Amino acid sequence: MIDRGIALPALDDSVVLADGAVFILDRRVFPSSIAWVRADTAQEVAAAITAMVTQSSGPTFAACAGLELAALQAQRLPLDDARASLAAAAEALANARPTNNHPREAAESVIAATAGATSTSELLEAAVDAARAFALRYRARSRALGEHTVALLDDGARLLTHCWMDTYLIELVRAADAAGKTFEWVATETRPYLQGARLTAHTLREMDQRVTLITDGMAAAALAPGSRLGAITALVTAADRVSLDGSVANKVGTLGLAVAANAFDVPYYALVQSPDASVPTGADIVIEDRDPAEVLSMLGARTASALVTDAWYPAFDVTPPRFVTAVVTDRGAFAPGSLAEYSTTRIDAR
Amino acid sequence: MIDRGIALPALDDSVVLADGAVFILDRRVFPSSIAWVRADTAQEVAAAITAMVTQSSGPTFAACAGLELAALQAQRLPLDDARASLAAAAEALANARPTNNHPREAAESVIAATAGATSTSELLEAAVDAARAFALRYRARSRALGEHTVALLDDGARLLTHCWMDTYLIELVRAADAAGKTFEWVATETRPYLQGARLTAHTLREMDQRVTLITDGMAAAALAPGSRLGAITALVTAADRVSLDGSVANKVGTLGLAVAANAFDVPYYALVQSPDASVPTGADIVIEDRDPAEVLSMLGARTASALVTDAWYPAFDVTPPRFVTAVVTDRGAFAPGSLAEYSTTRIDAR
Repeated sequence: MIDRGIALPALDDSVVLADGAVFILDRRVFPSSIAWVRADTAQEVAAAITAMVTQSSGPTFAACAGLELAALQAQRLPLDDARASLAAAAEALANARPTNNHPREAAESVIAATAGATSTSELLEAAVDAARAFALRYRARSRALGEHTVALLDDGARLLTHCWMDTYLIELVRAADAAGKTFEWVATETRPYLQGARLTAHTLREMDQRVTLITDGMAAAALAPGSRLGAITALVTAADRVSLDGSVANKVGTLGLAVAANAFDVPYYALVQSPDASVPTGADIVIEDRDPAEVLSMLGARTASALVTDAWYPAFDVTPPRFVTAVVTDRGAFAPGSLAEYSTTRIDAR
Repeated sequence: MIDRGIALPALDDSVVLADGAVFILDRRVFPSSIAWVRADTAQEVAAAITAMVTQSSGPTFAACAGLELAALQAQRLPLDDARASLAAAAEALANARPTNNHPREAAESVIAATAGATSTSELLEAAVDAARAFALRYRARSRALGEHTVALLDDGARLLTHCWMDTYLIELVRAADAAGKTFEWVATETRPYLQGARLTAHTLREMDQRVTLITDGMAAAALAPGSRLGAITALVTAADRVSLDGSVANKVGTLGLAVAANAFDVPYYALVQSPDASVPTGADIVIEDRDPAEVLSMLGARTASALVTDAWYPAFDVTPPRFVTAVVTDRGAFAPGSLAEYSTTRIDAR
């Protein structure tokens, strides 16, 4: 990837398996501090995911590394014990956070790959291969999704984004560069964790992109006709999960941006590798509520009056399909009402 | 006001003329610090308003106090010099910030009241009387507006609000209490200045109201059907200015809330003492852009990556009338398309 012509951003490689442990770049403090969280077991990797040490694509790479670590640590166990240990690791990683399903898929792919193993060494080899293959496939699918998104946009497009699209964003920028297109970016800061201000804007600058930061509440003003910032071409976000009816679950705040984009005739493209065939509608998507205390402070400093005790922190919201222009997948862009066609679309049809 | 049965909030009286100076409670740090900014001249009051020491209703009370201070400081001057000094004070206060027009109206009322004065003492007495009368009238009109808003809402209503409605909020809560109604509140934190987290939520708690704090990006999720927070009855915000076509200029972020409320069939009530008869449409409202550096930090601490240099800070946005259910004034509630009737509606018609 280094020879693709665009600088390599730090967050492109933020999970490392080394020294018998998984090291995860701590996105809660990045980029003001560069700190790695060490996880000595898959269960500790899961705990780090739950604690938001990493998010977006990060938990997928962390889950793959955690599964590989669990396999390495089981190599001296009898087959049944090794299988049970791997199953426990998979279970912990699959359930670290409820809304994004890639870690669960990674866990399931490893368990499926090891189903027929007849010895510990066979089981562990299959597990390591499956975990590594899942991570590589995740990157390849992100690259495809980035290319399909770039095909929808003209050179010079000004894109509004929210939170942190991670591998999707990095591959989208690389795909644009490869296609000879340059985009400008407007990033929301994304309270309470400031992923936009800390991760998205930082990574875009590392990749020499133009980016303007706004607070979450300024997005509608940016999308409205005659905005002094200049017209927004499209709203582009990742999706943590997309149901088959085209409902988009993503970082809380996405719904408000999608509604405003719709009101002002700006297209909204939601990026996801694939819809979740197990989830028929948006109402079926499990949404995680996180600790409301996180709304009362920022980067560890109290922001709210000391008299305030009640807060609400839905980590995600669900955007109904009527506010979504297209869901862009690794197999191309689909109208939200046509996602059933995803399963019969060939990967090389793009 | 003390015997109205509800505790007196600190921000209800945050401008004091004493010791030959105007003292303004510094809302940039309240409530974590209680600090008063001393202004020794009307021009220093204007500078404090420009620097956001106070906002919402605060600049109106500060402007009235600044005009009274200017009058007191001119008492030994010959008539022409006293008049020029007062005019300079009025000019500075009227132009401290461009979007809210009450300080300008206060300045104009004082200049008008002193037009016929034939001596310095006559001029100064007229100026002091006019400045005090403007402040009292501002409170009385806020009370009327609060009563008209309460009449639109049932007991137990859950109200979403944004930024800081100041005197309107305080009088609305008092009016509800007098009417035997209790409301619940959901307040956005309102980046970048956190007026919601610091001022609104604090004041509501001081007045024994139930309030839940959310970040700005969570408002659409709160307004959407089936929100786990419970249904929002209405969006209620102040307006810094309302044009005759019913366009509402208010703290940036209001537009996004109004668009989301409209999409999910939640009424939006915009509170303003009166529409601005000098402003025909929303496009005629002057919107202030503030220092973009304020978007890159919070309460003085850097929030954005150090690589990020570009930001945008529109202090206000303009909500088109199609997203406004009613504009509630001191003369009652008007559909946004009917604001021309305001000027012919009797004050006691409510």
